[in-house]
This record gives sequence, structure tokens and C-alpha cells, in this order.
Amino acid sequence: MTYSFLMIGQSNMAGRGFLTEIPPIYDEKIKMLRNGRWQMMSEPMNYDRFTSGISLAASFASSWRLLHNQKDDIALIPCADGGTSLDDWSVEGPLFQNAVQQAKAAQKISTLSGILWHQGESDSNGQKHGLYREKLALIIKTLREELDAPDIPLIIGGLGDFLQNGMYGQYFNEHHEVNAALMQFAKDQQHCYFVSAKGLTANPDNIHFNAVSQRKFGVRYFKAFQEKNHILEALPDEDQIIETIHQKPLTKNEKHELLQVQWAMGTISADEFQAQVAKLS
Amino acid sequence: MTYSFLMIGQSNMAGRGFLTEIPPIYDEKIKMLRNGRWQMMSEPMNYDRFTSGISLAASFASSWRLLHNQKDDIALIPCADGGTSLDDWSVEGPLFQNAVQQAKAAQKISTLSGILWHQGESDSNGQKHGLYREKLALIIKTLREELDAPDIPLIIGGLGDFLQNGMYGQYFNEHHEVNAALMQFAKDQQHCYFVSAKGLTANPDNIHFNAVSQRKFGVRYFKAFQEKNHILEALPDEDQIIETIHQKPLTKNEKHELLQVQWAMGTISADEFQAQVAKLS
Repeated sequence: MTYSFLMIGQSNMAGRGFLTEIPPIYDEKIKMLRNGRWQMMSEPMNYDRFTSGISLAASFASSWRLLHNQKDDIALIPCADGGTSLDDWSVEGPLFQNAVQQAKAAQKISTLSGILWHQGESDSNGQKHGLYREKLALIIKTLREELDAPDIPLIIGGLGDFLQNGMYGQYFNEHHEVNAALMQFAKDQQHCYFVSAKGLTANPDNIHFNAVSQRKFGVRYFKAFQEKNHILEALPDEDQIIETIHQKPLTKNEKHELLQVQWAMGTISADEFQAQVAKLS
Repeated sequence: MTYSFLMIGQSNMAGRGFLTEIPPIYDEKIKMLRNGRWQMMSEPMNYDRFTSGISLAASFASSWRLLHNQKDDIALIPCADGGTSLDDWSVEGPLFQNAVQQAKAAQKISTLSGILWHQGESDSNGQKHGLYREKLALIIKTLREELDAPDIPLIIGGLGDFLQNGMYGQYFNEHHEVNAALMQFAKDQQHCYFVSAKGLTANPDNIHFNAVSQRKFGVRYFKAFQEKNHILEALPDEDQIIETIHQKPLTKNEKHELLQVQWAMGTISADEFQAQVAKLS
């Protein structure tokens, strides 16, 4: 059985955490959609731009595996796209249509079990927040109808506290209002849970959650999913859960997959590859 | 005006050339499809796997720009998927369906002008070559019908001479037969042109064309497109064309885009970014 989750929103859902800053996550029971089929998850998962990196989806999936279901597979459907506003996500537009198509492709081979949303930076100026809830409501309503998924959990995260600190800070001068709109939206809607970004920190650009923060955010998203409730504070055990995830021993298949990658990338020779594979058997 | 090209096949169409081995190609008039919208092209373009790298598509597009059309945009629709056989590409399957959906999304915003195919390694054993032409014919016929594109050029490339030299050489022991089938297919079909891989070389894995070879292959694919003819030998001027492509001066927009990436990746500071942007103006 495979349980799938749709990733939609803008760059902080796609993920911009630096790959070099944290240990990787490898788990043969975490998949991602590629060209209509599942592949074993690797990061960056949501490759919308050259700058794509660590997102919250990997630690969300790992938490699900660790704390919720050890038997089945979990799979991500990456459809987030950097820099996009709610208007870009309008239900007639290409982003929405693409997300519906990808999710429908996934539904043929899995049970769609949730929607992960993070967006709002691009609506954080010019009084756009006033219409945020109304616009988002239409997007979500239409999405649920298209996917015949009226009651799967929708998890939506808050915006980073750091947004006004950076070079482009003036573009985010209403991010508190967008955050309030997201929270209110989650309170008003059924099957929708808000996740706070409190205490999470940024890359040097002060726009994107850094890798460690994305890992924490993913754990919080999972807790909201598991508890069917809003997560309004940092979790007391989030660091510990991440530590456990990062220390998960690799299975034989995962080790083999990693050796394949190293050999394909030319970082180990054919002889070394064969010697290492022999050791696995 | 935007002229688009569909990329389908297996890993050597997706591209596995190492990014570090050759200069990058940046051209604001070369786009790629991401989530139903155009983005400025960057490599890896067809991100089917973590190992994705340089493909033939970038130098194909650059050749088109250099030698065919300086005025308009060219765009790539990346749908190739590593390790896939012709059976994986059957018209009822997810790869084919995904390619049709992506190409249809692109047709809303461009003129679909060609199909770039490279596949066959996964059919190079077990006598699969005997049905290669028949299976490919059905895929192409159905694709042309679905996309209402009966006469756009289909460019298909040959397999690498090196395939039997590597650790997995025994899996490719009928690659000459597949190559012959590809060539015969191109001769039999209308609007289909074969491109030889003669002289092209591989990554250390002896499976994937290396970065320099992918650049050459892309130029050959373009020549087949331009001349509406088979390319059966290395081109006398392919090195020179690649040199010209790599030395193309960057426009102001391209320089700005590159600075954005460097800043987002944390390789230059906000101050340095602003100083460099100021110099551009």
C-alpha cells in the first residue's frame, strides 16, 4: 500500500535548504513521483529550479514512517513552484492544472492522503492579504472536487519570522497579515491544520528556510497530520525526532542504491563498486 | 513566438553528463517546461534522477538559436526517464501518458516543432530488437495522433559504441541490432531522421554519454532537424559550433539571473550581489 501527499505552494514548499548542511535521508519506503511513476525519494525532490534543495517533505515522510506506519510506503507528489502568488495558482492556470494532473496520475497507484501547502511570501505586499482566504478557499475547494478528496487533511504552514530582515524585506512587509490569514483559514476550514514556523531560521537570503529548519518544519507538518490539530509552537521533541531520522540505519537496498549513484557519478570506480556490493551480500 | 521540442526516451536523453566537465549554457531565449510554465533553461533540465546532468537538449537548442533562428524562443519539454524500455513506454503506460500531458500543456503556450528520442539500451538484450521497430512505430503513431502533430520531425539517435565495454556490458550485447533497427525505422518512417553516435564517448560507467559527447550529439540532432536528413557521421564543424555556443557573451538578464542564483545559494553575499547588480545597470 502506498499513501501519497501532494506538495503545492511556492519556493519554501519546493525547498531551498542547502543539501550540504544536514545529513541526507534515504529510505526505500519513501517515494516521489517522476514522470508518472514512483522513484525512491532523493533530495532535491521538487526540482522547480536549479536552486532547489531540502524541503519539509523528506522529514514529513520520515516522521510518518517513524511514528505512524512502518509497514507501508509513503510517496510525495512534488508540484510546488518558486515565486508563485495565489493568482498564479488560480484554478484555470497551468500550476493548478499541472498539480491536478500529477495528483491524478498518483491516485492511479496510491491512496492520496493529504495536501501539504506552503505559500504566501508572494502575497505579502500591496494589500493582497485581504483576499488571501477567499482565493485560497476557491483553490482548495476546486482541488478537493477535482481529486474527489473532500476530507483528506490539508496542512498549511506559516511564513518565516525573518522575511523582513533581508535585502528584499520590503516585498514582505505584510507577511504578518498573510500569516494571520493562513491561521484563520485553517480555523475556518474543515480538515485543515495550521503549522507555525516559530523559531525557524533562514538561508543568508532571509527568504528561504534553511535545511535544518525545513527538517523541523516537516516534523511539525507531520504532527499536525497525526494529531489532526494545529501546531502553534515548536515541538519539544523535534530535534530528537530529526536526530533519530538522520541516524536510521540503511537497508541493504538503500546501500546498494547509494553505491549505484556513486558509481554513476564517477566518485567510485567499477572495481570499488563491485567490491562494496559484494560486501553487502 | 516559442518553438517547443519534446524530449523522450531513457537516461541518455535525460542526460547524465557531468556538469563540472564543460562550460554551462545560459540563454534567456532557451526555456524548459516546469510545472506547466516556461523557465529559463538550466542544466540538469530533465531531472528524472539525482544523477541527472548534461543532456543533448541544451546544445540542440543553442545550435537552433545560433544557426536557425535568432529572433524567437526555443523550449524543451523534458519527459525522458532513466532505465526505461520500449515496453515501459507503451501507450497505455504512465511515461507515455505523462509525455502527452506535458506536451499538451506546452502546446497551449508554444508551437510543438519536433520530438527528440533516444532510447534502446534497455532493449539491447534478450532478442527484444526483433520487435523494436514495430513497438516504436505504435508509440510514435499514437503520440503524433494525440498531439495532432502528423509531420513534425522526429529525431532519433544511435546507441553508444562503448556499451559493451563496461561492468554491465552483458546487458547490452545486442546494441548493434537495436542501432540497426533505429536506423531502419528512420528510413522507413516519414519525417524521421537518424543521428549517429559515432565517436561519442562515455562516463566511467560506459553506459552514459559524457558531457562533451552530449554537446556534440545535440549539435548533430540539430543538423538532422535543420537538413531534414540522417546524420551518419560526426560533423566536421561540431567542435567549432560547441566552442561558439560556450563562448556566447551573456546578456544583462542572463548575468542578473546568474547573480540571483549565486546569492540564493549563499555563494555571494547580499552586498556583493547588490554591487554586481549595480554594475550591470
